[in-house]
Parts: sequence; structure tokens; C-alpha cells
Amino acid sequence: MDRPVINFADKFGLFDDRWKPRVIAEMNDYQFKLAKIEGEFVWHDHSDTDEAFIVLEGDLRIEFRDGHVDLSAGEMYVVPKGVEHRPVANGVVQLMLIEPRGTVDTGEAGGELTANNDVWI
Amino acid sequence: MDRPVINFADKFGLFDDRWKPRVIAEMNDYQFKLAKIEGEFVWHDHSDTDEAFIVLEGDLRIEFRDGHVDLSAGEMYVVPKGVEHRPVANGVVQLMLIEPRGTVDTGEAGGELTANNDVWI
Repeated sequence: MDRPVINFADKFGLFDDRWKPRVIAEMNDYQFKLAKIEGEFVWHDHSDTDEAFIVLEGDLRIEFRDGHVDLSAGEMYVVPKGVEHRPVANGVVQLMLIEPRGTVDTGEAGGELTANNDVWI
Repeated sequence: MDRPVINFADKFGLFDDRWKPRVIAEMNDYQFKLAKIEGEFVWHDHSDTDEAFIVLEGDLRIEFRDGHVDLSAGEMYVVPKGVEHRPVANGVVQLMLIEPRGTVDTGEAGGELTANNDVWI
């Protein structure tokens, strides 16, 4: 009972920058992260882990080299490890990511969009 | 892209029994489960894993031996491993559980409420 209840709307009210996931909780060695994203991310993959996306607000497209999926609020998708993908948000999307602690947002790709992967809020 | 997008409302429309979690997705060796719960569960703990609760509809209380937390839609809580707890739903609650594959809902306690822990929907 020493851990707090986490309210997503309250947490989203605390930051507004894009592509900068904030850690809100841990479960074993996994982390729950909230992010606001807008526009196109970089193509990347995570060679050693799946990655779960849950859309809380807005419309998210996840592009793959051979197609795409479209997610709205109340929908989720798990990108399998090793699969190249690119999130594209038409407008602002509020989403939750669930992945192992230490997962880097840009995976193997790197680049200027790479965020510190352990910023709590 | 061979995995489907998962819509929570659609999944909840496919079952109505209480305390029978349905697996909707896997991420590495973790599972995402949806459940409809109502009333009091049994006291139990999970000796080897944390357990994440995300409330999607309704009001959930999680009781601990030394207190409780109250969660509404859009809120989450991670029960630490080894901590005895009892979910109590005043009315019907729709929730998501995230935990390692093979986690039994009643933990070490067992009893008639123990559900098959790998039923997909």
C-alpha cells in the first residue's frame, strides 16, 4: 500500500513534450510509460523484446515494412521483437507503452529522437 | 502485421462471466488479460510476481491487510509480489490485468474462484 494509485489523466497533465516517454510504474523488470506523440517517428526495431502500445487518446498508425495497423483510444497492439516499425500520429496521440526496463525508444536506430528511457513522472 | 489490433470494448462484448480473465495479447512471456469482476474476491498473493491492474470501467477497491486503494476508470495499480490483497468490486468492474504467463488468479490461496489462467478471447 506504499505505492500510489496512478491516474493517467493526472500524469498526462504534468508534461507536454512529444516523444519523451515518462515512466509511471514498474512491474517486475517491466515499465509502464506514458507518452505524447505527434507526427512521424523513426523506423526502428527492438531486437530483444516485444513492445506493447495502448492508445488512450487520438489515432495512431503503426507502419511496418509490409503494411500498417490503425489504433484508436481503447485499442492496443503488440509489436513483435525484431519487427521494424514506425509510429505515426495524425495529431497528438496519448499512449501507454509497456516494455522491459531499459528499452530505448528508437531501438537499434538511434538518432536525435532517442529519449532518456528512465524518466519518471 | 499478422497480429490483430485489439479493441477492449469489442473483447468485453464477447463474455459476461465474472472472475474469469480472458487473455487478449502476449508480450514476451507476459499476458494481457481482460476480466469482469463483481463483489469480493479471495485473499491471496503471488509469491513470485508483481501484478498490474488497470481499471477500464467501474470502481475497484484493492484491500490489503493494512489498508486499501480505490481505483476508477483510467487508473492503475501494481500490487507488489508477496503482498496479500483482495479485489472488491462494488458493481461490475471491467479491468485489465498484466502479469507473467501462467499466473493463477488466486495465487497461493486456491479455492473455487480459481480460473483457468490461459483462456484466450
